[in-house]
Amino acid sequence: MAENESSRLLPYQDPRDTFGPDQIEELRREENKQIRRDRARLILWLILAIILTSSAIAFTYFFARVSLGKSRNVIMMVSDGFGPASETFARTYYQYINNMTEGYMTPLDEILIGSSRTRSSSSYVSDSAAGATAFACALKTYNNAVGVDQNGIPCGTMLTGIVVTTRATDATPGSFSSHVTSRFQEGEIAKQQIGDYVLGRQVDLLMGGGRCHFLPNTTDDGCRTDQRDLLQEGLSTYGWKNVMSNRQEFQALNATDTGIPLPAIGLFSKLDMSFEMDRDKEAQPSLSEMAAAALKSLQLNAGTNQGFFLLIEGSRIDVAAHSNDPAAHVNEILEYHRTVELVRAFVAENTDTLLISTSDHETGGFTVGFQPDPTVYPEYQWKPEVLTRAKSSTEVLANKLWGFPSDRIDVGRRDKFVRREILEQGLGITDPTQEEMHYLIFPKKTVVELSLYLGQMLSRRAWLGWTTPGHTGVDVNLYADGHADGFKSLHGNHENTDIGEALSAFLKVDLDLITWRLSKDTEKWFHPKAEVSSNLDNYHHQKTGN
Amino acid sequence: MAENESSRLLPYQDPRDTFGPDQIEELRREENKQIRRDRARLILWLILAIILTSSAIAFTYFFARVSLGKSRNVIMMVSDGFGPASETFARTYYQYINNMTEGYMTPLDEILIGSSRTRSSSSYVSDSAAGATAFACALKTYNNAVGVDQNGIPCGTMLTGIVVTTRATDATPGSFSSHVTSRFQEGEIAKQQIGDYVLGRQVDLLMGGGRCHFLPNTTDDGCRTDQRDLLQEGLSTYGWKNVMSNRQEFQALNATDTGIPLPAIGLFSKLDMSFEMDRDKEAQPSLSEMAAAALKSLQLNAGTNQGFFLLIEGSRIDVAAHSNDPAAHVNEILEYHRTVELVRAFVAENTDTLLISTSDHETGGFTVGFQPDPTVYPEYQWKPEVLTRAKSSTEVLANKLWGFPSDRIDVGRRDKFVRREILEQGLGITDPTQEEMHYLIFPKKTVVELSLYLGQMLSRRAWLGWTTPGHTGVDVNLYADGHADGFKSLHGNHENTDIGEALSAFLKVDLDLITWRLSKDTEKWFHPKAEVSSNLDNYHHQKTGN
Repeated sequence: MAENESSRLLPYQDPRDTFGPDQIEELRREENKQIRRDRARLILWLILAIILTSSAIAFTYFFARVSLGKSRNVIMMVSDGFGPASETFARTYYQYINNMTEGYMTPLDEILIGSSRTRSSSSYVSDSAAGATAFACALKTYNNAVGVDQNGIPCGTMLTGIVVTTRATDATPGSFSSHVTSRFQEGEIAKQQIGDYVLGRQVDLLMGGGRCHFLPNTTDDGCRTDQRDLLQEGLSTYGWKNVMSNRQEFQALNATDTGIPLPAIGLFSKLDMSFEMDRDKEAQPSLSEMAAAALKSLQLNAGTNQGFFLLIEGSRIDVAAHSNDPAAHVNEILEYHRTVELVRAFVAENTDTLLISTSDHETGGFTVGFQPDPTVYPEYQWKPEVLTRAKSSTEVLANKLWGFPSDRIDVGRRDKFVRREILEQGLGITDPTQEEMHYLIFPKKTVVELSLYLGQMLSRRAWLGWTTPGHTGVDVNLYADGHADGFKSLHGNHENTDIGEALSAFLKVDLDLITWRLSKDTEKWFHPKAEVSSNLDNYHHQKTGN
Repeated sequence: MAENESSRLLPYQDPRDTFGPDQIEELRREENKQIRRDRARLILWLILAIILTSSAIAFTYFFARVSLGKSRNVIMMVSDGFGPASETFARTYYQYINNMTEGYMTPLDEILIGSSRTRSSSSYVSDSAAGATAFACALKTYNNAVGVDQNGIPCGTMLTGIVVTTRATDATPGSFSSHVTSRFQEGEIAKQQIGDYVLGRQVDLLMGGGRCHFLPNTTDDGCRTDQRDLLQEGLSTYGWKNVMSNRQEFQALNATDTGIPLPAIGLFSKLDMSFEMDRDKEAQPSLSEMAAAALKSLQLNAGTNQGFFLLIEGSRIDVAAHSNDPAAHVNEILEYHRTVELVRAFVAENTDTLLISTSDHETGGFTVGFQPDPTVYPEYQWKPEVLTRAKSSTEVLANKLWGFPSDRIDVGRRDKFVRREILEQGLGITDPTQEEMHYLIFPKKTVVELSLYLGQMLSRRAWLGWTTPGHTGVDVNLYADGHADGFKSLHGNHENTDIGEALSAFLKVDLDLITWRLSKDTEKWFHPKAEVSSNLDNYHHQKTGN
């Protein structure tokens, strides 16, 4: 750049050489005035900038929906209650029924990157609520906590789509889309999912079971005591466009070219959806069908430049394990594998997409080996062929048995019913022991007890073991595919909270800011219920739940 | 390049233009002679080359020891009978006794790279023999097979050092250093380990238990019916320099600066060495002490430019799991962790070294969760504090109980002994049930049965579950550290045979050539015993073994 010519020609002169003291003083005053004017202008600009920035922040964080970063997508798949043994088990079963040798890789086997440590802040053994909150909020919390921290304070999450097979209001989907201090507040979870809370509607697509908590108890499927019809309110007040309640409506709405117009809600059963092996294909879509529809719909119908965060849960893998039912368990897992396969195909075509698949915890203390007779030295094997003969889940059979007239006088009729319809036709069991028949013939058992007993009968014959109808603490497998930025920090062994951190980092979402938004007006929308425990020695006594 | 000047100036002339037919014929004959002479010379050279190459091959593969590539080392660590739940369990126990929160990583957690699939060629559930042969020979074989393939044919392995805590002749070390069709041929395994077979001495350092199979049954510790003293023969005939039989001799020989002069053999017990929690520190070195000595000794005393292949096995992790003894199990694992830590320090300083740590199979169907009362809904927890109170393994206590005078008349004395010395002092159990006392007071049980029963008593109280005293099929964790070339192919989920392939590739050892060497003179050294099964439906009935 050219310099000023005069400055180049004239030597430097100190002003004190040409001006007198007064003139210098005046020059200083003039200079100071100028500095003050400049300062005032700067301050004005700063104030203006602060106002503009604040407005932008306010707009972004108070009035807009949670931004998921320009067109980056996350598909978080949760295989609920699925430990390492369950994957080995399902792979081996698949190899057996397809007459394969070793070496076959399931869609999960191919993308194993490490394992996730599942302990919660209140126990070495997590439940689904604390497990899902670890993914959603990236923090450890107590068993029972849905989208709240150890102290029961709502914590920021991010989500735009939900596909599950238990109730949409169950702990896993709940933890990504609502904030309650106890997982049993399912009516409250439904309210928030529909958009009735401080952040308004966050979810674009919600599919699963659990109409119960969305409808008034005066309707067939409803359980709400406040008589609110959240599905109707969703359409009229919270901006939902479509509601589906069976597979026909699902298929009609899910057009081949365009997918389901969003926002949409599909609830396909009163409570949990059916196990895959029991599913009425006319009434309910499968997990993989819902997942395929969700991917297409979110991709085509979400806002421009807006990524999506889709939760897909193989929810009833866990429920089958709670019943120690190996046939229902393996069929749920194989359907989950099919879903992983189609999600991986989507991810391969959409490079800005990250797939994470993991579990919140193990269920059942399931092992691929069992010694039926403890007096002989164990043989090293298990018998997949036994499971191929089971035609129904033990849950369906237990309900059938429970509903059978329990006339003690006609024990013969009940004996025949148990032998033929429950054991032989239902489970392929033709060799019940006297003790087993005695347990099943005489009623006075709950459906849960009967289901567990039948599950254990089948397991014993397949040489498969379970150590609890509850959960265990083993690390679960961690799988990832797609955009490597999203999971490069997750190779190896990690706390479950690291997964939440990786997801928010990939989407460039600041969970703390969402937590801050949630802290507003809590008295209006947040209703703490259960006592909060953050003490490892003070375990929760849970009576139900996954 | 400059062309020949004359050829540039003179036009081409066909010889037929300047020579007559006879002259041309003579030229042709001359030319043919020259061609024949050239051919003869070429054939001579070829024959010479073949002879030289063959000699080199013969020298390399018949007379030299197996070459492990210039100064590349492999440390193969095997945590026998250690499934994913065992790692979670040991980490959590360690966190509990050290009052740590979540986040602490064990030396294994830090280097998780994937998992290994363990099924053998004869079953979905492997034993240690087939499991170790998969690593050693890189092929699937039947349960019971030690260094032989599915058809019972010896398969090439590579090894220079062994550190174990069961018998040196047990299935895992046996599969890396010998070839027998049944793991129960331990006397035969010992013979080959000492050098009495077609390849001669292959091992530089052998440490563990199992003097039994090396000494004649006329000596205190010996069991050999052929009256051979293999330790004496080792020194006199097979080139071994040193023999150790207790910790004093081990320490005396293991000089701080130089390590143990090789080749050396140290057998520190008649059969298995003690569990770490029972170990007499005067009599036996620990796994970590043996491992440290082995690393130093192999590094300093192996041949120049010769790498080493060291097997370090946490052998009795598995034995504790067979007894369903959680206290012995966790203490064996913690000692294994200490060993991993020191091996990783060695690997960090020796960059041409590869560490792989994995398991042959899971044992016990162990889970970190158990429901003691099946009539109530399970709590989600387990209780590490229970294990801190156990002072002896159940194996030691079962032997003590078995040896107690079983005078049925003095039941009171036995009751007191069981309550005080076995349960209270041994396991910290002060609340035995009537049923439990009845089982323990009246004898007629084997040591194995008593050990298992005591293990299950302790486990129930800690809310830990087991489903078998045998093995299960779950994929086991795969850990690696050191030279990334050695494990870059092993990230994710793999068949156990892939590990054997990666090891031989890293060391540039052609296992097929070693197999070929083993095929010589088999009638002189190889004595097939058990029937070979390669049928998945025809499981082996094993009466003992890990």
